[in-house]
Amino acid sequence: MELWYTEKHTNTVNFSIQVKRHFYSESSPFQQIDFFESKEFGTFFTLDGLMMVNEKDEFVYHDMITHVPMATHPDIKRVLVIGGGDGGTVRELTRYKHIEKIDMVEIDEMVVRACQKYLPITANQLTDPRVTLYFEDGLKFIQGKVAEYDLILVDSTDPIGPGEGLFSMAFYTDCFKALTETGILINQHESPYYPNYAREMKRSHDKIKKIFPISKVYQFHMPTYPSGHWLFGFASKSLDPIKDFKKEKWEAFGLETKYYNTDLHTGCFALPTFVKKLLEE
Amino acid sequence: MELWYTEKHTNTVNFSIQVKRHFYSESSPFQQIDFFESKEFGTFFTLDGLMMVNEKDEFVYHDMITHVPMATHPDIKRVLVIGGGDGGTVRELTRYKHIEKIDMVEIDEMVVRACQKYLPITANQLTDPRVTLYFEDGLKFIQGKVAEYDLILVDSTDPIGPGEGLFSMAFYTDCFKALTETGILINQHESPYYPNYAREMKRSHDKIKKIFPISKVYQFHMPTYPSGHWLFGFASKSLDPIKDFKKEKWEAFGLETKYYNTDLHTGCFALPTFVKKLLEE
Amino acid sequence: MELWYTEKHTNTVNFSIQVKRHFYSESSPFQQIDFFESKEFGTFFTLDGLMMVNEKDEFVYHDMITHVPMATHPDIKRVLVIGGGDGGTVRELTRYKHIEKIDMVEIDEMVVRACQKYLPITANQLTDPRVTLYFEDGLKFIQGKVAEYDLILVDSTDPIGPGEGLFSMAFYTDCFKALTETGILINQHESPYYPNYAREMKRSHDKIKKIFPISKVYQFHMPTYPSGHWLFGFASKSLDPIKDFKKEKWEAFGLETKYYNTDLHTGCFALPTFVKKLLEE
Amino acid sequence: MELWYTEKHTNTVNFSIQVKRHFYSESSPFQQIDFFESKEFGTFFTLDGLMMVNEKDEFVYHDMITHVPMATHPDIKRVLVIGGGDGGTVRELTRYKHIEKIDMVEIDEMVVRACQKYLPITANQLTDPRVTLYFEDGLKFIQGKVAEYDLILVDSTDPIGPGEGLFSMAFYTDCFKALTETGILINQHESPYYPNYAREMKRSHDKIKKIFPISKVYQFHMPTYPSGHWLFGFASKSLDPIKDFKKEKWEAFGLETKYYNTDLHTGCFALPTFVKKLLEE
Repeated sequence: MELWYTEKHTNTVNFSIQVKRHFYSESSPFQQIDFFESKEFGTFFTLDGLMMVNEKDEFVYHDMITHVPMATHPDIKRVLVIGGGDGGTVRELTRYKHIEKIDMVEIDEMVVRACQKYLPITANQLTDPRVTLYFEDGLKFIQGKVAEYDLILVDSTDPIGPGEGLFSMAFYTDCFKALTETGILINQHESPYYPNYAREMKRSHDKIKKIFPISKVYQFHMPTYPSGHWLFGFASKSLDPIKDFKKEKWEAFGLETKYYNTDLHTGCFALPTFVKKLLEE
Repeated sequence: MELWYTEKHTNTVNFSIQVKRHFYSESSPFQQIDFFESKEFGTFFTLDGLMMVNEKDEFVYHDMITHVPMATHPDIKRVLVIGGGDGGTVRELTRYKHIEKIDMVEIDEMVVRACQKYLPITANQLTDPRVTLYFEDGLKFIQGKVAEYDLILVDSTDPIGPGEGLFSMAFYTDCFKALTETGILINQHESPYYPNYAREMKRSHDKIKKIFPISKVYQFHMPTYPSGHWLFGFASKSLDPIKDFKKEKWEAFGLETKYYNTDLHTGCFALPTFVKKLLEE
Repeated sequence: MELWYTEKHTNTVNFSIQVKRHFYSESSPFQQIDFFESKEFGTFFTLDGLMMVNEKDEFVYHDMITHVPMATHPDIKRVLVIGGGDGGTVRELTRYKHIEKIDMVEIDEMVVRACQKYLPITANQLTDPRVTLYFEDGLKFIQGKVAEYDLILVDSTDPIGPGEGLFSMAFYTDCFKALTETGILINQHESPYYPNYAREMKRSHDKIKKIFPISKVYQFHMPTYPSGHWLFGFASKSLDPIKDFKKEKWEAFGLETKYYNTDLHTGCFALPTFVKKLLEE
Repeated sequence: MELWYTEKHTNTVNFSIQVKRHFYSESSPFQQIDFFESKEFGTFFTLDGLMMVNEKDEFVYHDMITHVPMATHPDIKRVLVIGGGDGGTVRELTRYKHIEKIDMVEIDEMVVRACQKYLPITANQLTDPRVTLYFEDGLKFIQGKVAEYDLILVDSTDPIGPGEGLFSMAFYTDCFKALTETGILINQHESPYYPNYAREMKRSHDKIKKIFPISKVYQFHMPTYPSGHWLFGFASKSLDPIKDFKKEKWEAFGLETKYYNTDLHTGCFALPTFVKKLLEE
């Protein structure tokens, strides 16, 4: 039986994965959620028809969203994750024994419950006692918070549908206020290659650099996202990811990672010229 | 009219590009050659049904094969390109005014002639007076050459079909002999992500590191190649791409590049942990 | 979310249906069973990856397998259905109040149970008191039966996998013996258009005409089967579907049908010349 | 090299043919014309991205558009073909030695010239001395003609683009006037299965039956057209295709045909009940 999941990376470029089973398909109040089983990528799920997480390359994304800020500021104790319903970002955070508090605000409880059932590889640490789950709108949750978090990780969908507000000026401003003096904001930063994604990358970066004194972008290889060339934004009130990088301190944690390492920490901020130009335009 | 070029990245993963025209289709004595026109990637061509070069992301590949060795050893004067029928590698080399001699050995003249006609963006410098085209088997061409080249760029297809011998121990040994004391060999190194490609990456690396005292691997984002995560091998008799990097000297050339830059030079050698492990296995 | 079921009609011809959900996927001891929900065809199911029944055009197949013999021999009282796990053939038979006994022999109980749950449009008459379900191999069931049935309907898959024996000389001979003097055998007869199917069509016909004095073939439009041009075989000990056609008697039953009618009864035996030639070869 | 021509039969149903070459692609003043070479169907061409004619099943269409009226009225001498740029309809007409005049009015000369070059199997009789080619708009050509033709064959594209007017009341009325007393009009009548096509089928039939005293529809199996279930309309001032059928006279012509035969002549007018209902609505 040939069944193919197809994602349109652009109107004229398709990425297709043969699936064995499409075993979950539900509409939440926020979005369409589908889970699949495939040979190449194991279990994966989509939101509104876009690939979110799969067993084969989720480690790339979750390593890069978490360890880059943790190695820049290894004393982070209070973390807010916005989105991240699959649990992979929280899983990486819980590996740091000194982190005291992890608040995860995910608007869509159905995503979390489905991942706990079908994607334990990412969701298996959501029951860590330091983790509190809030099934709320991240935009509202963060309003009025002052200096409560050392790190905010915005692990969102694209800026369409439920994720849209998480790319707004108002939201980034609220994040700034909610962070402590050495606080760091990491956000999903789209991709420089296909025009639709590049436009959102620029819009996001333009906003953040108006608010945060330090605003950089780093890249990684995410084969199942459009073009495979994906970015996170690193914004901070005072810490620079390269100058303030605490290599030895992070290595002392003794964490095994499959993608991130301390050479890559510096390397990932070295962007291709065309990406730098797009970000500076 | 909907016409789609489909490349199987694995047996269960398809990458498909809608094409406007399939305007060239010929069998050479060595391989099947097809040219297409597409909206997203402009003109592109395939050999034996695999994407080789397109107008949208060719700059990534050609920047990375050329400028990394040139910035490590800016005095390179004699260069051998093996393969590279599209001409893009030669085009980048000709931008260095001090290079004296560029020999290009491409087994398949039909590829070169078709690129000159349909892909001038890459082939337009093949008529540079320093360039000599040899339509021969690179394997034989290099046999017996001693200390003739400062740089050898192996711009080959995958190790199946005409490109197979270019991944052999004998060939790498001949390259070693053909290089001068500070000579550098760059070779197409496949990809770490999908198993078929990762196997060839390892086989190639295992061979080269037995022959060359310095053998490293660097990565780049090539969206139209399987997984978008692609590698070159950097091998040398004496020069290390990081320690011997001549940043200022290269910047003094004043070359504008769209992908490569001197930050990226160092960054691209910082490989993800899983890639390092595969290479060390 | 774009999910496409693709059936290869030949190695170079694909028929693809966008599906909303793939909600059932099980391996029985006999075959792989999958159910889907689609916009164009409603619910459909596949066996070993081949389209069997869908809500949009199942009426064509079930009308043609049932009413053609019933209008040729309206006094049929005892019927054997071999295969037909979806129940559509039995559903049409139960509309004849005078039929006394319907034995259905389906090797794969899982198909029947799944259809009862997910495809009631075809399976809803399997509980008719005249129906007896046998979950057995039809080949064995029929061995040794003598003059027990007035009509045998072979509602099978293609002659690959579990359906293979139902296209054999031995089976057709057993059917002949199991039929009464005016007995009729209808069998799934594949298609004349694509070579793989045409070969099976010929093989089946060659065997049946050696055993039955009357052996004809009739056609219908089945858009979701390969080429849309599909056939049934009509074989009988003594009745000719045209000469013995009981138009008025059948019309007196007052059955409403969506595909079959008494004009079509005659019309469907008029085959294109190329089909006649293939059958006579 | 995998290259697939895909035709959307509906928004959620794709029919795809692997092609070896896409060797012609031109925009005429009227439409986009593309020719392909395929394994299964040989050479085929599309207009505005829709399959028109291929070497494998063109015989079905051309047999059915031509021989049904010729066997109803074997004395036809003057024929007008509107559309039919591939030449297949004319080819079948030229097999009747007693036909004196064949006017073919095709709006798009480029289609004819391309078919003469690349599809001689259909276009090879356009040079018959009885044939006159008019590269004009059929709508205008027929205006004012009175009793000039015994037969008009409207071999058009779908009622979108250049073919649109050929499905209008005004055009059918002009056809009526241009026909002699026993004149016959055959027109491309779309398909009953997918809703978009069924709507056009009904609209066309509704108009013709208001103008012609005799208006019938006949069907055939055309595997490469959407659903494979295709129709022609038969309209006449006085002749009924069944009652006036001249079986013996047609058989005396001694023409070998691959699809049409005199049994099928009657059979093809026996329509499924759902088609009859759609036409009567």
